[in-house]
Amino acid sequence: MAEDALRRLAANTLRTLAMDGVQKANSGHPGMPMGMADVATVLFSRFLKFSPKSPSWPDRDRFVLSAGHGSMLLYGLLHLSGYDLPLDELKAFRQWGSRTPGHPEHGLTPGVEMTTGPLGQGISTAVGLALAERMLAARFNRPGHEIVDHHTYVIASDGDMMEGISHEACALAGHLGLGKLVVLYDDNHISIDGPTSLSFSEDVTARFAAYGWHVQRVDGHDSDAVEAAIAAAKAEGGKPSLVACRTHIGFGSPNRQDTSKAHGEPLGADEIRLTKEKLGWPADAQFLVPDEVRAFFGEAAGRGTAEEGMWNARLSAYRAELPDLAAQLDLFLSGSLPEGWEARVPSFPADKPLATRQASGAVLDALVPVLPTLAGGSADLTPSNNTRAKSAVDVKPGEFGGTYFRFGIREHGMGAILNGLALHGFRPFGGTFLVFSDYMKGSIRLAALMEQPVVYVFTHDSIGLGEDGPTHQPVEQLTALRATPHLVVYRPADANETAAGWRVALGRAHGPTALVLTRQALPILPPTEAALRGGYVVSDAEGFKAILIGSGSELHLALAAQKLLAAEGIPVRVVSMPSLELFLTQDEAWRESVLPLGCRARVAVEAAATLSWTGIVGLDGTVVGLDRFGASAPFQIVYEKLGLTAEAVAAAARNLV
Amino acid sequence: MAEDALRRLAANTLRTLAMDGVQKANSGHPGMPMGMADVATVLFSRFLKFSPKSPSWPDRDRFVLSAGHGSMLLYGLLHLSGYDLPLDELKAFRQWGSRTPGHPEHGLTPGVEMTTGPLGQGISTAVGLALAERMLAARFNRPGHEIVDHHTYVIASDGDMMEGISHEACALAGHLGLGKLVVLYDDNHISIDGPTSLSFSEDVTARFAAYGWHVQRVDGHDSDAVEAAIAAAKAEGGKPSLVACRTHIGFGSPNRQDTSKAHGEPLGADEIRLTKEKLGWPADAQFLVPDEVRAFFGEAAGRGTAEEGMWNARLSAYRAELPDLAAQLDLFLSGSLPEGWEARVPSFPADKPLATRQASGAVLDALVPVLPTLAGGSADLTPSNNTRAKSAVDVKPGEFGGTYFRFGIREHGMGAILNGLALHGFRPFGGTFLVFSDYMKGSIRLAALMEQPVVYVFTHDSIGLGEDGPTHQPVEQLTALRATPHLVVYRPADANETAAGWRVALGRAHGPTALVLTRQALPILPPTEAALRGGYVVSDAEGFKAILIGSGSELHLALAAQKLLAAEGIPVRVVSMPSLELFLTQDEAWRESVLPLGCRARVAVEAAATLSWTGIVGLDGTVVGLDRFGASAPFQIVYEKLGLTAEAVAAAARNLV
Repeated sequence: MAEDALRRLAANTLRTLAMDGVQKANSGHPGMPMGMADVATVLFSRFLKFSPKSPSWPDRDRFVLSAGHGSMLLYGLLHLSGYDLPLDELKAFRQWGSRTPGHPEHGLTPGVEMTTGPLGQGISTAVGLALAERMLAARFNRPGHEIVDHHTYVIASDGDMMEGISHEACALAGHLGLGKLVVLYDDNHISIDGPTSLSFSEDVTARFAAYGWHVQRVDGHDSDAVEAAIAAAKAEGGKPSLVACRTHIGFGSPNRQDTSKAHGEPLGADEIRLTKEKLGWPADAQFLVPDEVRAFFGEAAGRGTAEEGMWNARLSAYRAELPDLAAQLDLFLSGSLPEGWEARVPSFPADKPLATRQASGAVLDALVPVLPTLAGGSADLTPSNNTRAKSAVDVKPGEFGGTYFRFGIREHGMGAILNGLALHGFRPFGGTFLVFSDYMKGSIRLAALMEQPVVYVFTHDSIGLGEDGPTHQPVEQLTALRATPHLVVYRPADANETAAGWRVALGRAHGPTALVLTRQALPILPPTEAALRGGYVVSDAEGFKAILIGSGSELHLALAAQKLLAAEGIPVRVVSMPSLELFLTQDEAWRESVLPLGCRARVAVEAAATLSWTGIVGLDGTVVGLDRFGASAPFQIVYEKLGLTAEAVAAAARNLV
Repeated sequence: MAEDALRRLAANTLRTLAMDGVQKANSGHPGMPMGMADVATVLFSRFLKFSPKSPSWPDRDRFVLSAGHGSMLLYGLLHLSGYDLPLDELKAFRQWGSRTPGHPEHGLTPGVEMTTGPLGQGISTAVGLALAERMLAARFNRPGHEIVDHHTYVIASDGDMMEGISHEACALAGHLGLGKLVVLYDDNHISIDGPTSLSFSEDVTARFAAYGWHVQRVDGHDSDAVEAAIAAAKAEGGKPSLVACRTHIGFGSPNRQDTSKAHGEPLGADEIRLTKEKLGWPADAQFLVPDEVRAFFGEAAGRGTAEEGMWNARLSAYRAELPDLAAQLDLFLSGSLPEGWEARVPSFPADKPLATRQASGAVLDALVPVLPTLAGGSADLTPSNNTRAKSAVDVKPGEFGGTYFRFGIREHGMGAILNGLALHGFRPFGGTFLVFSDYMKGSIRLAALMEQPVVYVFTHDSIGLGEDGPTHQPVEQLTALRATPHLVVYRPADANETAAGWRVALGRAHGPTALVLTRQALPILPPTEAALRGGYVVSDAEGFKAILIGSGSELHLALAAQKLLAAEGIPVRVVSMPSLELFLTQDEAWRESVLPLGCRARVAVEAAATLSWTGIVGLDGTVVGLDRFGASAPFQIVYEKLGLTAEAVAAAARNLV
């Protein structure tokens, strides 16, 4: 069969699989797969470097379906290309326990590089993947040893283009000149509300050109044009590429093509029949895969598998000739840290007070030189977040050997790029003020959902930041982050707990960690391994009548209150709880040893929303917290005026005993 | 004194006030005020229409300092222009109780149109202000009665340009052709990390041109050029305007100009002295305001005050000739709702199950035609959010008479635009899926901080959305929103509680409300006024041994569990709690009547993070919730597999009694 006819047949197979899958599930999004089937066919058959039986082959091209609602397109491609995704899985689309959920989920389905669905995340995370490739190439490629050399391809939708995160990440991609990133934009003129002309009239290619991208426009149903465009995109090595593919959503459906009804609901049995007829397909066949199509995609898979074989041979040569580099490379491939890394984490003598953000900076000073996979940056708050280690070198346009990122004032884009770096073997970290965790929550959630080991360095963690006032003083953020599954929040009370927090964070190979750090200096307590458990007794009292529980800077209010109460003859225990979630996952014996259920006189103190702590103190306890916004003034005054004082904590305890 | 010399003197007054204010506070941001002083002087003296003794004059131009960290520039301008902001307030910059907080706060300082500081919010909210102006003009202007005619001016920074929210809002502003929006971009090449070239190389004017904006570049220290550019921007009526003003941060400071050190810290006494010398200023003078400068700005204020007088005369004529329209206009000016509006809220007979999102749609069908200030839209989820009332008319480019917005897939931009609409007299609402409240949290927080009456319509509120899977199933969002001060979260259990939720939301003139609604149908319960209290007994039992507390769809699990337990001879009370925050603000008698402190056998059930409810059930109770991500499958199966069942609730209660 001629290439043209084969391509048409392959694209129509993808279309009919999508229609059939969505129809059988009675929910889903057929329109996008039908519209982008031609483009995807060209990409997978002509360009994408992949080895379906080795979905984790390190030097594979990355393909990100940013428009995750079009998941049936991806499942069809993976199935046809020979990934371990049998046709029965496609028939179980969107059913419990299948590997074909409504939106692609990383870790569940081989070949799915990341979880997508929330628009804008895919294209932005792809920037992180493409950045990681350049960084690995800079680290590991040597003359005659090109061990890292792959592309990152994205299919993105109108929604991806409208979302602000795409602006942040793509502007940075243009700045850095990530030439091996190729975005295929499904320019189909339709969104859920109707024609995109309802709300969307920007010139997308002009916008990306303004970011420094290489841009093209093609007819997305003209396979030769698409092929030429992708080839031109690959040829442009110094700039990321955008190919705007004009397509027709629901392509082939006589009554749904080019309508928003094609987007998010089954076509219905009658329309599917009509569409199949129009596509020259057996009208009654379902989940039909012509042998030629399997062979067609199999050929590309075969090429990729052969390339993998050659790469493995190159890797063997690399290991033989460059054993030290290879050992470093293995850290990226395995996601592990060098033996004995924990011993490098400093401890701090209790000489003079230190802000926990500064302690965090000291930990990074110690770890960055010895942990090759550790790389991070800040959303333009480097001097405030203390994220740049003394030894760090900036990643710059054309210079990818460094470990430090200047993300610009782009928190959400930073979050997505961190996800991409983590998916590509880095242990990434990123800093901003805690209050601006709000701006990046969408990408934090995806890190949690994908269980990626991203570390967030959130400084200026309370009213303790003082004069910048309520716009910058977090209140509800701690509770919001603590409620997020798989995310561990760690708010250390001093420099040594900060070191413990970094040990917790880097010790977690699966799942992100938020370190929540002060602007202001705090006294330093003796280091203890108990801090790794999230909650422990920091100062006990014989026959204690109440328990004071503090996190972060407020632990010191609890300790001061303990003294006030002791002077009155009221012995109280003080518990430090840098991480509520960690504490709650300790065994019952530990929890009972710290917070005996029999002691109901409990006072928690934290300069943040009380909702985090009402469950810990119970119906008989009290939370000294902040259920209002802060205020602009020197921080000591704000604490005092808003009732966050040792005296208030002592008074609360006195009331209970 | 010649105009040129006066302008220089005025700008230098702003510069020295900023230097002195920051130095006295020993914290703050002098660089931006010093850089933009020339531009701001031209704007305030030549263009801005304002009446300092009537800061709420409805037809004033709006000025938004999007780069809120440059607050001393604004305070200087307000002081010099004759607003009620004495010099002593500028001397109390960033101190407790002053009207000059670190970042401008709406409601605290006359002339501050909105709270700014979190970057991107100002420029994006300004889009809402400019949109509101067009909408009011379309509603109220009549031939010979131009009662609404003002501009919205913004000073924005590099950070505003980098933030994704600016992309979302400005793309929509270009689409809608908001010709009376003028953005003065402080193109100073410096951010906190250093030169913007570290991370920022986009062509900002090309990007805005791609959005359909009118763009210009000028030397921001050439007052004549700035004046000509603003005049040209005003002359362009069909497009919003961006004027990129090349400025020098810290202008005049011999050692700090054009450095990041000028941005966010005091210059220091020595450098201030050097700077003053260079500016031809008395080196030892502090907070010095030359009389000529006060007179210079006073002249502009005088013009504005005269315009206000003429406008008041026009308003009188308007009231006389167009009394019905004037009555409607008063609703916008007062922020109140028409008498008796609550009677228009429908109640629902208990015939067949209805999704609460559909009930919300029915409420909007009833209210949109009778509440002139009610206007809203959706971030491209109109058919899912049920936000478009049957009578609604779309707002379109050049057609601003409608009440419905097609926001596009731009949640964060939507949030900011809603804030702008609220600040300009509307009662705005906006819809998206609950999980994407994450994307707009930054603007939700500002609505809360500014206590604006914005209503969020968050549908698809749990695993009850089914097949779309974990990327779309919220878990932690309810807790995150509940922890936010001034925000009320209302998650109704049926159609009638949905109606109550709308009454709560619209009844709140100060502060936003989030309505959290199901995709799936729910049985309908009898309407009750008790639902306005946030928590009430929905089904009691004589001698109850436990209390089951449910919100939203899970109330029905509690009711079913009650039946299961009754069959075993265990009487339990069922409490509906659509709004934890509302319930907790009821008087103690009500709270005790619903949840008697003596009853410790409490089970809360909600298909979301348990953290919201641990405090309500206490140390002896149980929460049946979801501390993991969801899964893709038909929703009944997801509920069952994840343990959200009546049997699980009954079992939890059984364990407690």
